[in-house]
This record gives sequence, structure tokens and C-alpha cells, in this order.
Amino acid sequence: MTEATPAPIAAPTASSTRDRLLDAAADLFYREGMHIGVEALCRAAGVSKRSMYQLFDSKDEVIAASLDRTAAAYRAALFPAADDAGSPRERILHVFRRLEALSVDADFHGCPFVAAAVELKVPEHPGSLAARRHKNALIAYFRHEAEAGGAQDPAELSRHLTVVFDGANSWGVVQGSGTDGLAISMATTLLDAAGMKDTAG
Amino acid sequence: MTEATPAPIAAPTASSTRDRLLDAAADLFYREGMHIGVEALCRAAGVSKRSMYQLFDSKDEVIAASLDRTAAAYRAALFPAADDAGSPRERILHVFRRLEALSVDADFHGCPFVAAAVELKVPEHPGSLAARRHKNALIAYFRHEAEAGGAQDPAELSRHLTVVFDGANSWGVVQGSGTDGLAISMATTLLDAAGMKDTAG
Repeated sequence: MTEATPAPIAAPTASSTRDRLLDAAADLFYREGMHIGVEALCRAAGVSKRSMYQLFDSKDEVIAASLDRTAAAYRAALFPAADDAGSPRERILHVFRRLEALSVDADFHGCPFVAAAVELKVPEHPGSLAARRHKNALIAYFRHEAEAGGAQDPAELSRHLTVVFDGANSWGVVQGSGTDGLAISMATTLLDAAGMKDTAG
Repeated sequence: MTEATPAPIAAPTASSTRDRLLDAAADLFYREGMHIGVEALCRAAGVSKRSMYQLFDSKDEVIAASLDRTAAAYRAALFPAADDAGSPRERILHVFRRLEALSVDADFHGCPFVAAAVELKVPEHPGSLAARRHKNALIAYFRHEAEAGGAQDPAELSRHLTVVFDGANSWGVVQGSGTDGLAISMATTLLDAAGMKDTAG
């Protein structure tokens, strides 16, 4: 019996290079800022500049794509599981409880999408557009749950919850000591005022 | 009669050089970001690097001092005049009305202190400490007015108003289209809930 030829170690595919680059970009941009240069980014990702420019036209495109890639993980960190059986009120409060927990982490620098928009300064930057898109996904989540829970004005409630979410994030960043329970207490007040009781399922 | 010797044009004093540098720094950091280098800063200010380093030990110190210098103008833009005769409720709502007005300006990039803290990432950075100090001055303003207006829990109200202030700022930055009335509507709701009527003077 001849020995089986070992399978060659797969060469990195374009897809895995792309993922590695975007993961490193998301991490580096969040921890250090959007001004991080292409050199530092490629070094952190272990990707050549040539490879980067084969995949993306510009650093601006890398920023936007890295925010898109961040979005899935960020939503997974904030939202309850899809098969979660909690009430709409609970599914909204889950987000604020998660924010409180994230905000005391040493690596907390606020909402990655707000941080991107604040740092990029230009509302039409591809990264700012990505930030707006993903913030709007949070608003849509709140609105969906607000409608399911019979809130008096789901559109207004979803905007107010978003202001609380972002304001609590800013509090955490500026004070450097978490969101101090403000996210939960204010969200609870808004849900009570909108008539969203825990009985709606 | 001999012609009077013309007075020599006064050489810029250390104080005016400092002011020019800090004004340029505040403007540039707010419009472009905290990562702007010393070269670009000194060029914008019309100040030599040598002069800068005679006045400040580091760029970090320039950042902190420029935020301190920004604070007076920012408070003047937000707060009513010291001799304003409005009720505490009105003196709080004044801040949110001014925020709504500032947020539709083309040069709006959110609260300069939150932006600094978000961009600097390091809670112990001299600029982050300055940001916290000036945000705490806003909280203290709210608290003072809340106490004067007989709010049920002035400490909590001042924290909640700050979360709304910062969250509305984030909304304006992310959406790129102002704070959409959210600052006023949410502040009004909080003042109503805290029992701050317009009759207290």
C-alpha cells in the first residue's frame, strides 16, 4: 500500500486574503482610528500593498468594506439570537444590556459606525455611507420590535432609542468608565412611555 | 518740526502667537481630525515649529490647550447669556435649540469634545482629559438649572440630558442632515417627566 500523498496546503484564496485584510482593517481602524495608513494596515494584515490594490481601488473602499464586514459581528454582539423567544420589549432591552456590558471592556471605543462617521468628517465618504447604512439597520431593528410590541409611535420610538444608544456610547467614551447604567435606565423609560409592556410576545 | 518717528509695528507677543496657534489647532482638529500633524498645524497657524515647541512640550499638549480654548466659544454658542432672565427649563432648552441650529451647519461635525475623545481613543490622553472636563461642565450646567427648576432628581436629569445631547450630536453626524428635532423633543420629554414646569424662575 502506498502512502497517501499529503494534500498540499491550500494557497490563500483571494477570498481569504480579502477577509484577513478586512478583519485587520476593522480592528485597527476601531482601535487606532481611520487615519491609519495603508502601509500599517497591510503590515497588520500580513497582506502586500499589491494584493490590497488588486482587491480594492482605494483605502476609502477598504474602510467601507471593513465596516460592512464589522456589521455582522457587531449585530451578533448586540442582538438576541434569531430564535430568541423574548418579547419585543425584551429584544430591545437586550441591545442596551449588551451595550452596557461592552462599554466596560478595555477595548471599548464606542459604536464603530459613529466613530467612523465622526472621524471621516465627510458625509459622502464611502465609509460614512456605510456607517449610516448600518446605523439605519439598528433603527430598523428597533422599529420592527416597536411595531411588534405595539408601541404608540414605533418610528419615533426607534429614533429616540437610537439617540439613547449613541448618547450612552459617547458617555462611555468620554467618561472612560462605561455607560453607567444610563443605556438601560433611559431605554426602559422610553419603552414604558411608549406603552410597550412585557406581555406582548 | 521734525517728523515723528513712526511707532514700530509691534512684534507678535508670545500670547498672540499662542492664541493664533490654538485657534488654528481647534479649527483644524475639528474639521479634519486629531491626527493632523504638527507640520500642517504650524502651516495653518502661520507659526514656526520652533515657536510651537517653545510654547508647548508636545502636540498632545496643543490638543488639550486647544480644547480648553474652544470651550469658552462653544459654551457661548450653546448657553444663554449670563443675564438671561429665562426659567431654568428655558435655560436648558436653549442649549438643545442651539444644538439643533448648529447641527444643520455645513461645518458641523458633532460635539468637539466627544469627537476628540472618540478620535484619541486613550482615556488618559491630555486631550481626552480636557474633553471629559468640558463635558462635565455641560453636565454641571444642566444640574445647576435642574436644581434651580426643582427637578425631581437633578443629578439623574443632568446625566440623561447629556446622553440626549451627545446622542443627538451623533445622529447629526451619522445622518449628515442635522439632529432632526430629536434634541428638542427628547429634552422636552425629560423635563416634563422630571416635573420642571416653565413657571419656576
